[in-house]
Amino acid sequence: MPSPREASPELQKALKESANSVNKTIEHLLPETDLPEAPLFDAMRYGVLNGGKRLRPFLVTQAAKLFNVDPICAKRVGAALEFVHCYSLIHDDLPAMDDADKRRGKPSLHRQYDEATAILAGDALLTLAFETLSSDETHPDPRVRIELIATLAKASGPHGMVGGQMLDLIGETETFDVGTISRLQRMKTGALMAFACEAGAILGKTDEPHRRALRNYAHDLGLAFQVTDDILDVESTPEALGKDTGKDADAGKSTFVSTMGKDGAKSRAEMLIAQAKRHLHLFGARADLLCQLADYVLERRI
Amino acid sequence: MPSPREASPELQKALKESANSVNKTIEHLLPETDLPEAPLFDAMRYGVLNGGKRLRPFLVTQAAKLFNVDPICAKRVGAALEFVHCYSLIHDDLPAMDDADKRRGKPSLHRQYDEATAILAGDALLTLAFETLSSDETHPDPRVRIELIATLAKASGPHGMVGGQMLDLIGETETFDVGTISRLQRMKTGALMAFACEAGAILGKTDEPHRRALRNYAHDLGLAFQVTDDILDVESTPEALGKDTGKDADAGKSTFVSTMGKDGAKSRAEMLIAQAKRHLHLFGARADLLCQLADYVLERRI
Repeated sequence: MPSPREASPELQKALKESANSVNKTIEHLLPETDLPEAPLFDAMRYGVLNGGKRLRPFLVTQAAKLFNVDPICAKRVGAALEFVHCYSLIHDDLPAMDDADKRRGKPSLHRQYDEATAILAGDALLTLAFETLSSDETHPDPRVRIELIATLAKASGPHGMVGGQMLDLIGETETFDVGTISRLQRMKTGALMAFACEAGAILGKTDEPHRRALRNYAHDLGLAFQVTDDILDVESTPEALGKDTGKDADAGKSTFVSTMGKDGAKSRAEMLIAQAKRHLHLFGARADLLCQLADYVLERRI
Repeated sequence: MPSPREASPELQKALKESANSVNKTIEHLLPETDLPEAPLFDAMRYGVLNGGKRLRPFLVTQAAKLFNVDPICAKRVGAALEFVHCYSLIHDDLPAMDDADKRRGKPSLHRQYDEATAILAGDALLTLAFETLSSDETHPDPRVRIELIATLAKASGPHGMVGGQMLDLIGETETFDVGTISRLQRMKTGALMAFACEAGAILGKTDEPHRRALRNYAHDLGLAFQVTDDILDVESTPEALGKDTGKDADAGKSTFVSTMGKDGAKSRAEMLIAQAKRHLHLFGARADLLCQLADYVLERRI
């Protein structure tokens, strides 16, 4: 096996700085408490402050930077988005869903606490995301905040992420073709990635061509991310990934690998990443880190 | 047992008309679909279009009427609120939570479909609520929409409804005093009721005294509603209520009845309803139906 390719030193540094920075915003938005219902807040913090890579907040801050947006605004949107991402993982890990014992090398939330707390912590994080976006600390212009909320709700609701999760469940008993798998993944993973990049454009009040370019970049990136996830699910080990592997095959789910084979999936990921980078031409050298991130998604081993 | 007291003919008519009207708005916002993920939408519709009394949308429309708000706006807010209320019931009924087999005389959502679908349908309804509020069809002024979203998020999140549900869980193993039970219920039930009434004031862009009066009315009404719920849980039958009874006692939960006795609980409910009605004096005869509703909550048998 080749040694894991790493992100470039520049990208590594930017990812780390961005993660540290958004973690501080998350700590600020979700502080510890001694209220009687503290176990809920503890569980929410456990589900969010778990060493995640913060890829989505990185996309928000990088896209926002293209339009010289105040970094404080971008970080709050990144934190809200991470609340939604983490709630979806918590609910996805539940016994009735993927029944995952581990998440990022630690017990999944319902294993650490209990199922009821996991359901409520997920619900509370989703709600907190919208509360965060509605605050004037996120952006002074209420029209910008409304557009962020409308776009996130569409991306994460029944026509976006949750709809994709439903398709994923249906895929346990039905065999999907590549078109349906692509649609599933665009909804389940791509929609939140697309929101991350679009949020930068919304915060920057930019025009439709720039916004569309970022949305298209994110959609291709998100799909490539999922293809490489499917490849890692069959190629990697639980130790390397910090979560169970081979679960999709065990559950009888159609994946890019089961449908196209490992080589077909790898070509597809390469094609998608090339396409993703082409969408960024509009921004020239200012989008270098977003281009590097696309390469990193292709080469990642975790 | 005395024969069930019914709402006055005027209130009955108004409740029925309001329920029919908000049901049409819900049908419009949540239509049937033939997408591959249709089971999600079917489950959402099953969880919402279930013959509910639509008490919360009634409060929204009645409060909005005090300020001559366009009824279309009020109905959309009422529908969004009902999405939140119904999502909370769906998740509350799950085996890991209250493990309820029935809801309004029919199988609970996870019994009709399955647990995974129930989790996702709840998640999707909560998200759809915020999507609905963010649309300019709900109100032309983005500042009004943002305030609705911020207020609903606070009322339904970890400092509101979900926090109350967490306390409810903790109450299965800890004994609460009346103060903590009141706080629990203010969060679990009262917060959404308060939002219902405040939403009318937000839509009407009214001043703080009028908004506070409605919020206080709703808090007292919500608490009285919960006290009568606890009384019905020990006095009524599953056939009359359309859901299991005696579950709180079985789960060892502290309730108003277990703490104050049945007579104490009844006096408390009467005191709260008298107080609720006093908050409405500010509005004079225009708030007659809201006063009648308060009396009805006290006398209801279902």
